Amino acid sequence: MDTNPHRYCVIMCGGIGSRFWPYSRTRMPKQFIDFLGTDRTLLQMSFDRISGIVSPSNIIVVSNSLYADFVHEQLPELPPENIILEPARRNTAPCIALASWHIAARDPEASIIVTPADHMITRENEFEKSVRAGFDFVESNDALLTLGITPTRPETGYGYIQIGEHVKDSISKVKTFTEKPELEMAKVFLATGEFFWNSGIFIWTAKSIMSALSEHTPEIASIFASVPPETYLDHERETEFIDRVFPTCKNISIDYSVMEVASNVYVETVSFGWSDLGTWSALFDLSPKNNDNNVTQNCNVLAYNCSGNIFAVRGEKLIVADGLENYIVADADGVLLICRMDREQKIKQMVTDARIKFGDKYK
Amino acid sequence: MDTNPHRYCVIMCGGIGSRFWPYSRTRMPKQFIDFLGTDRTLLQMSFDRISGIVSPSNIIVVSNSLYADFVHEQLPELPPENIILEPARRNTAPCIALASWHIAARDPEASIIVTPADHMITRENEFEKSVRAGFDFVESNDALLTLGITPTRPETGYGYIQIGEHVKDSISKVKTFTEKPELEMAKVFLATGEFFWNSGIFIWTAKSIMSALSEHTPEIASIFASVPPETYLDHERETEFIDRVFPTCKNISIDYSVMEVASNVYVETVSFGWSDLGTWSALFDLSPKNNDNNVTQNCNVLAYNCSGNIFAVRGEKLIVADGLENYIVADADGVLLICRMDREQKIKQMVTDARIKFGDKYK
Repeated sequence: MDTNPHRYCVIMCGGIGSRFWPYSRTRMPKQFIDFLGTDRTLLQMSFDRISGIVSPSNIIVVSNSLYADFVHEQLPELPPENIILEPARRNTAPCIALASWHIAARDPEASIIVTPADHMITRENEFEKSVRAGFDFVESNDALLTLGITPTRPETGYGYIQIGEHVKDSISKVKTFTEKPELEMAKVFLATGEFFWNSGIFIWTAKSIMSALSEHTPEIASIFASVPPETYLDHERETEFIDRVFPTCKNISIDYSVMEVASNVYVETVSFGWSDLGTWSALFDLSPKNNDNNVTQNCNVLAYNCSGNIFAVRGEKLIVADGLENYIVADADGVLLICRMDREQKIKQMVTDARIKFGDKYK
Repeated sequence: MDTNPHRYCVIMCGGIGSRFWPYSRTRMPKQFIDFLGTDRTLLQMSFDRISGIVSPSNIIVVSNSLYADFVHEQLPELPPENIILEPARRNTAPCIALASWHIAARDPEASIIVTPADHMITRENEFEKSVRAGFDFVESNDALLTLGITPTRPETGYGYIQIGEHVKDSISKVKTFTEKPELEMAKVFLATGEFFWNSGIFIWTAKSIMSALSEHTPEIASIFASVPPETYLDHERETEFIDRVFPTCKNISIDYSVMEVASNVYVETVSFGWSDLGTWSALFDLSPKNNDNNVTQNCNVLAYNCSGNIFAVRGEKLIVADGLENYIVADADGVLLICRMDREQKIKQMVTDARIKFGDKYK
């Protein structure tokens, strides 16, 4: 393995995965589940994927303190001081700021790939090539690089990045970031060849991102710049510091606070079989189908007159279904969800409704 | 309470309730479940209902040996020797023959009401009046009396009894028994006023039914007539005898073997708010509905765009459902069933399929 000692990875895995409720729960979010039945969780798959490029000693996992045990158990290879635990949920900007100052304290010359843990990548060789090219670029340019996935369909569930001026190879300036489009607009996006799916994977040097954070979101940057590097190098002191200051950070995404406003934002267009695992229908699309066009996760299913469903169970269970088309059927920890696939965007609201009506036990 | 010491009751509760699978299971059939959320099981409700008419010491419960513990636990008032356990399932004729010879050994002058435990009766005063009138009739006539329920709708799920010559009050000769009719035929039945729902509740004297069994199904009757009355009065000897001979009986219903062929068959037409609890849709019809026209049994439900469903859970669970109409959703003991209500007649086949595919654990 060719791992450059200045290269680091930050895996962000503090989300609560509420879009996969009840299969993914606050107490067991999707990144900690063997979601695809491969015997590796999404977090483990993210770790495996990057560990050919970045030495495990340089992989930092940032999660919520709720999930400390999951991270330790699932990544025994990871040095304990590489696990950073957030005491509160504050979106990606504070998370990335914290990780950046932490890494810079270890190595001011560090370059960093930042990645969520809840996507799937099927072509790992391509991934490795793209990531290495990205590192090479940011190490010789003051660039905030985001990976844009070459779209294969007019997907309405993803954000898009429009490329601007071409720089070199597969790297261009970013012209715009756009929200999830309507179908007609997505078709136009696809036809122009200028629009790429926003993967949420970033590559930059510690210097570039700290500089950008300091410029564009100084109220967050100043918090993490307020202590000397030594604080980040002593796990106990660092933890005390994080627990104290992290909750005071404002809740904002790196996209909104930095990427959409900075002038040195670039996109590397890539094709490595990426899929967001953000939705049940994405999981359905990605999963192998039974003969009857249903997807089953971790359960025995007898299906009659059923098609287009995803059946997901945590814990042993037999599901017998008759006359269901295009439903999500998910059962875990005392909650059964049966929801039309095309209404899955309502699931977050359902979780909220359940909490209001029945209390926190079903979160 | 006015209980005539010659009057007995036989509650038959050995069925496995497979039509309510998986809520009702071989290991916990519906008669032993608090099906209507009243804190009394169907067996207990049957016992309560009859115990104003028949002394508890004269109530005999015939069940399958699998369910001995349920009967003992649920009916602590019942003398243990009043519980007769069948070692095998042989339908109603052997069950009734056994119970009849048992009761006749105690009291040759006994009259007997025989009733299943899986229906609901809402007007208990009417029930009591009807049963007393039935007892009075059979105690002065050699009559096999069945209770025919005045129909209130063209139900296609029940068998019907056509009345013949009127005898007295609400009692007539039976002209025919008919199977479950098609809807058009059921409408004709209702319009004529001659057809009544077959309740499966019978009243007769021990003498009359033993005589009829001996005449019409001598191969069964001879088995139970083969030992002296003393055998039935010694619980241990009786149990040994039953365990030995019962499995040798042929599997046949009392309707087919006796009621449809005997000449002294009468029907008492009654109206006491009877409903068969034989099907999910019957249970749906009987149960109070939520505002959104769903029925929930023993579970918290959040329903969106749902109507006409029955949600039944054994064990605590939250069900969140979106976009379901007219489904059965039943969850118990490691099995989840989601089935269109109009396909519930397929559930027995599903149970068989599950057993073939996954073994006996889901029975």
